[in-house]
Amino acid sequence: MASNQFGQIFRITTWGESHGKAIGVVIDGCPAGLFISEEEINLELILRRPGYNALTSPRKEEDKAEIYSGVFEGRTTGAPISIIIPNQNADPSKYEPIKDLLRPGHANFTYGEKYGHFDYRGGGRASARETAPRVAAGAIAKKLLMEFGIQIAAFVAQIGEVKTIEPEHEEIDSLREETLKSPVFCPDKEAEREIIALIEKAKEEGDSLGAIIELRAEGLMPVLGDPTYEKLDANLAKAMLSIPACKGIEFGAGFAAANMKGSEHNDLFQRNIEGNVITKTNHAGGVLGGISSGMPLVLRCVFKPTSSIRKTQTTLNKKGQKADLTLPEGSKHDPCVAIRAVPIVEAMTALVLADAFLMNRSARITRESAKSYSS
Amino acid sequence: MASNQFGQIFRITTWGESHGKAIGVVIDGCPAGLFISEEEINLELILRRPGYNALTSPRKEEDKAEIYSGVFEGRTTGAPISIIIPNQNADPSKYEPIKDLLRPGHANFTYGEKYGHFDYRGGGRASARETAPRVAAGAIAKKLLMEFGIQIAAFVAQIGEVKTIEPEHEEIDSLREETLKSPVFCPDKEAEREIIALIEKAKEEGDSLGAIIELRAEGLMPVLGDPTYEKLDANLAKAMLSIPACKGIEFGAGFAAANMKGSEHNDLFQRNIEGNVITKTNHAGGVLGGISSGMPLVLRCVFKPTSSIRKTQTTLNKKGQKADLTLPEGSKHDPCVAIRAVPIVEAMTALVLADAFLMNRSARITRESAKSYSS
Amino acid sequence: MASNQFGQIFRITTWGESHGKAIGVVIDGCPAGLFISEEEINLELILRRPGYNALTSPRKEEDKAEIYSGVFEGRTTGAPISIIIPNQNADPSKYEPIKDLLRPGHANFTYGEKYGHFDYRGGGRASARETAPRVAAGAIAKKLLMEFGIQIAAFVAQIGEVKTIEPEHEEIDSLREETLKSPVFCPDKEAEREIIALIEKAKEEGDSLGAIIELRAEGLMPVLGDPTYEKLDANLAKAMLSIPACKGIEFGAGFAAANMKGSEHNDLFQRNIEGNVITKTNHAGGVLGGISSGMPLVLRCVFKPTSSIRKTQTTLNKKGQKADLTLPEGSKHDPCVAIRAVPIVEAMTALVLADAFLMNRSARITRESAKSYSS
Amino acid sequence: MASNQFGQIFRITTWGESHGKAIGVVIDGCPAGLFISEEEINLELILRRPGYNALTSPRKEEDKAEIYSGVFEGRTTGAPISIIIPNQNADPSKYEPIKDLLRPGHANFTYGEKYGHFDYRGGGRASARETAPRVAAGAIAKKLLMEFGIQIAAFVAQIGEVKTIEPEHEEIDSLREETLKSPVFCPDKEAEREIIALIEKAKEEGDSLGAIIELRAEGLMPVLGDPTYEKLDANLAKAMLSIPACKGIEFGAGFAAANMKGSEHNDLFQRNIEGNVITKTNHAGGVLGGISSGMPLVLRCVFKPTSSIRKTQTTLNKKGQKADLTLPEGSKHDPCVAIRAVPIVEAMTALVLADAFLMNRSARITRESAKSYSS
Repeated sequence: MASNQFGQIFRITTWGESHGKAIGVVIDGCPAGLFISEEEINLELILRRPGYNALTSPRKEEDKAEIYSGVFEGRTTGAPISIIIPNQNADPSKYEPIKDLLRPGHANFTYGEKYGHFDYRGGGRASARETAPRVAAGAIAKKLLMEFGIQIAAFVAQIGEVKTIEPEHEEIDSLREETLKSPVFCPDKEAEREIIALIEKAKEEGDSLGAIIELRAEGLMPVLGDPTYEKLDANLAKAMLSIPACKGIEFGAGFAAANMKGSEHNDLFQRNIEGNVITKTNHAGGVLGGISSGMPLVLRCVFKPTSSIRKTQTTLNKKGQKADLTLPEGSKHDPCVAIRAVPIVEAMTALVLADAFLMNRSARITRESAKSYSS
Repeated sequence: MASNQFGQIFRITTWGESHGKAIGVVIDGCPAGLFISEEEINLELILRRPGYNALTSPRKEEDKAEIYSGVFEGRTTGAPISIIIPNQNADPSKYEPIKDLLRPGHANFTYGEKYGHFDYRGGGRASARETAPRVAAGAIAKKLLMEFGIQIAAFVAQIGEVKTIEPEHEEIDSLREETLKSPVFCPDKEAEREIIALIEKAKEEGDSLGAIIELRAEGLMPVLGDPTYEKLDANLAKAMLSIPACKGIEFGAGFAAANMKGSEHNDLFQRNIEGNVITKTNHAGGVLGGISSGMPLVLRCVFKPTSSIRKTQTTLNKKGQKADLTLPEGSKHDPCVAIRAVPIVEAMTALVLADAFLMNRSARITRESAKSYSS
Repeated sequence: MASNQFGQIFRITTWGESHGKAIGVVIDGCPAGLFISEEEINLELILRRPGYNALTSPRKEEDKAEIYSGVFEGRTTGAPISIIIPNQNADPSKYEPIKDLLRPGHANFTYGEKYGHFDYRGGGRASARETAPRVAAGAIAKKLLMEFGIQIAAFVAQIGEVKTIEPEHEEIDSLREETLKSPVFCPDKEAEREIIALIEKAKEEGDSLGAIIELRAEGLMPVLGDPTYEKLDANLAKAMLSIPACKGIEFGAGFAAANMKGSEHNDLFQRNIEGNVITKTNHAGGVLGGISSGMPLVLRCVFKPTSSIRKTQTTLNKKGQKADLTLPEGSKHDPCVAIRAVPIVEAMTALVLADAFLMNRSARITRESAKSYSS
Repeated sequence: MASNQFGQIFRITTWGESHGKAIGVVIDGCPAGLFISEEEINLELILRRPGYNALTSPRKEEDKAEIYSGVFEGRTTGAPISIIIPNQNADPSKYEPIKDLLRPGHANFTYGEKYGHFDYRGGGRASARETAPRVAAGAIAKKLLMEFGIQIAAFVAQIGEVKTIEPEHEEIDSLREETLKSPVFCPDKEAEREIIALIEKAKEEGDSLGAIIELRAEGLMPVLGDPTYEKLDANLAKAMLSIPACKGIEFGAGFAAANMKGSEHNDLFQRNIEGNVITKTNHAGGVLGGISSGMPLVLRCVFKPTSSIRKTQTTLNKKGQKADLTLPEGSKHDPCVAIRAVPIVEAMTALVLADAFLMNRSARITRESAKSYSS
């Protein structure tokens, strides 16, 4: 199956349950010679931490990634990089009262049917905690991409009816900076205020909210992605839908394209001041025929409202009897888990792009590539 | 790279360009013992044929799939199944006048940047013709799934502002029947009329239309899909985004989830008359934690308007000089290629489900599975 | 399963049975820009042809490979290359009398147990004919390697007790030339005569012979192969053992190492006249720690005697009853199939080396590689 | 690259260097429901431990594997199993004096050429220590196989000119028991004495010895292995050649087949007392056409003499200057590392068989398999 792996050349294998000793990732295929430190990884991890700000889940985990292999004297060696993040504060006893109940919106029904036997504590392998190793691996992929001039930024684009006014003309650097300043990863001050109000209201009501996350990336050379089935957008779609709670993705104009004509949607080619080929518009979202076009990558993905809510829900127990589900006192409640998806969407994008970048090295034969073995 | 392959156990490898001798597919991993005929494959192929009805592209291809290997005395043998579909009527000379122009919305710019050298005739490998072998392989996957009670139907859900009234309570059998009767794959008679009008108008204007295709599948056991990265919805997303012109996908409530609360979106568990666990609603679209829940699979994907339009467009030539692009007389023009995506969406779904079904055979150890080697 | 595929980046998928319409291969991942023609492929195919000379099987097949896709204007395009070789002279009726008998040394017992239903005619998928597409694909891999200065030659090293006197100091070019001149692929004239005598005797007796094939390759840069499990020698071992009838492989000193001391077996480093690092001896056979050392690659593999013999053998029928197996009149009999393995061993080596070469492109980050995307 | 992974369905990813914090393995694809404990793993690990007996390397490591994920309440859950083995007693300073010397028979030359930057301490990733996680993973694979009646035993078959008298008629259980009693893994008392003498002499001389390890496995159903490239023997060959110092492999009669006739080598089918199909001889070593035949699996692999010897060797330094290499005082010296390969050969075999077993579950469609999703 190997279903806990992602990527072809730059491949990650993640492991660990919410309430086990630790969670981790092995990165196989990172080129030798890249400078990387635990600090750089932990700076990314802090972004997804529950309790990063007052609005999200209060469970405090001091996520500290440790590099166990593959890095020597500060640089990658070409050997697999093993990163381990110990679990803390993981008392599973509070889940005892609900362990026999089917939890609406959760995976414990399907895990039960599929595996018979599984770790149900705190979501187990299906916990959002599973995404921490993705972010750790993504930090290394980002570092690799930065060496080649590729930058990535995600932000909250919509919660409820509140939409972030599109910060279109901003540099991607400053967009990311603005986003990270915001406790709800929203670079639009007005939208931010409304979103905070929505989240506080949901918290009070014991309810939860969905959201749309938007991602932009720049600096992509017009060669990333492989037809037919390893298209850049196909792999990004798989990457995003693999994130817990993600229910959809669109590129560029996305679903709006159903109501557009070809003469509107087609991005016309022209040259910019430097003489490079660009397109006048970017309805394609930076991908043509599955290959990056050189225009900014633009994608949006939707996350369903957090499944765990404080409101009592009717359900069944394992025996098929009706039962009421009420979250135990002291159990985690994050009214808008989607916000925490911002660094994860960035990480998954970085993993896809790093892989596509390395894949592309065998696309052509040229005199330069002839010498490249000795590079 | 192996970028022309899809699936893990039930794996297809497709090949061929629009104007080469033929196109084809090799299916590796189909279990032995399945009855399959060329007729069954050709019945599916006819659905995607340009010129299947008057509204779509008039290029007449009598697509006839031939099985070259892997089937003996009418049944699969476990050996790779090679299917070849000869190309006909493939005069590439009409593409000569535009071969040096960057075509808006097309892949010839990115293919050129990536590969330097490629077959530009009629879209080459990036042609919609590339999808015929997918449909051929999908026919076999469908046959396998039918053995286990899984059925699939796709239809046109939206074109322009016209939306198909959701045929929710229909049986999937009759839904497919109604759809196939319609020249625009629309099971709603009123919407069908409006869509036909839209397409005729677009044809007149030399313009094109986008569309949303919806897919439903029933009979899925609550075990299909593998966490973490091989989630059923993640693989379906990759499958759909690998189809030319697809720009987005959503499951169940999809993007609407951004404006829903957890108490609304969560599907509550209950039992049906037969005593089986079902959910009251199906906002999840039949997938929980990446595993099928037993509820109908529901997904929608959006296709951008056909890139090839008759209207003249400004663009650049390969040298970077401004130029006008006008489609040559006699060249193909399909004002709504998205309609032809209906059988392709079905085929890709069948491929993902067949693979997930076979994958699931190693999910557990049990006494039954102990004997299964001799099955 | 995808068990009919070989290679990671330069990946082949082969298909076809002995008595079907055709056999073929799809090569996915060959870089764009390589000049390749059907003639070059057919020149390799002729070498494995049964009936290439009077000593091997008389079944005359005019194997003619046709390229169906992936090559445009004489060069590869980066798209999958589909090669098809029609089957000729394939009358399966002569196999009717023995179709219910378990054939000693053949796969029809195990295929029957595994698949229940399979194409038994002429060996079906287990036929030596299956190797023709390997040779076709190998021709392209060889062409790619030649661009980078890598050359390959295999020859018959032993049959019965006759051993080829090791042509150690020969240039690899002339070694191959000498080998191809010999009807038994033996570059040592004296050994050749004895081998021919052995084969003629075996033919008379209705019996068959095993053999050892040796392969040498030169020009390998000291970077090919990936630890830990994708070691160059590990992949070569898999490649060779995947050839029908191959029962063992050894590198350099091989099995003799069991009776050597470290001080004997260790190859001492020194510099050659050009100042390059070489080793004084080559007991390692050109591989150190799974990576090519820059010294010649040297491997030997053993092929069992042809399973099909004219002598009558006692066996069982499918019902488990005792029976005599006598090959039907007119059925193929090749007294030393191992000779025909020479071009196959070369082809499989070329496939492994091409893959390792492309893999290596992502081993390091350097300034040159930074620019390589635009190469 | 993903070159640190082995297996398709039952897939391991290993990581770690000789002198890092720890080494480990992630097993992805082990079915849910298998009982497994750290004790069972550690019982296997003890076998490969340097210092297990006085004749092998005295470096004492108390290898203790810890399970970090994938096992809950004593049983596997279907989630990835992460096993970590801390490194102890790992003082790298003694390698300082020789870090700039090319070590004959070692990988530091090729790693240097390939990666530029790597962890040279104690062999780093190329250390024999890398094999501990293989043994840990193999312990789980063995447990899975035992559930289905498959048993495995390896032993030392030859060192120098001393050959183990083949214990042919022994039960595999008692063969393994006898082997494990021997400090040199040799089930033949007389050979054992001679081997011990050889090793002691080599130790005195500061030299080292090669060896041949033989492996037998019983209980294989006649269905394991997948033609064409995933043949059981092909995967076993790759597995063995991936073990450091392995230089060759043969099955059944192996290289002796070069001097056999078909009428000798062919194993004739007959029925045993229970009525099962067996063969009279087993020259094939239990594999026919790449699929297990039901007869015992028999393979032998050769390991070169330990590269690290105490004798001074002439070599080059990194600058290409002549230099003498003398192992630093206190550095490890194991005069016959091949002995330690016995548990590794068993582990790699178990991994290949477990994978083939799970793969086979999708070989056929039958009524039983129809129900298997719910098993």
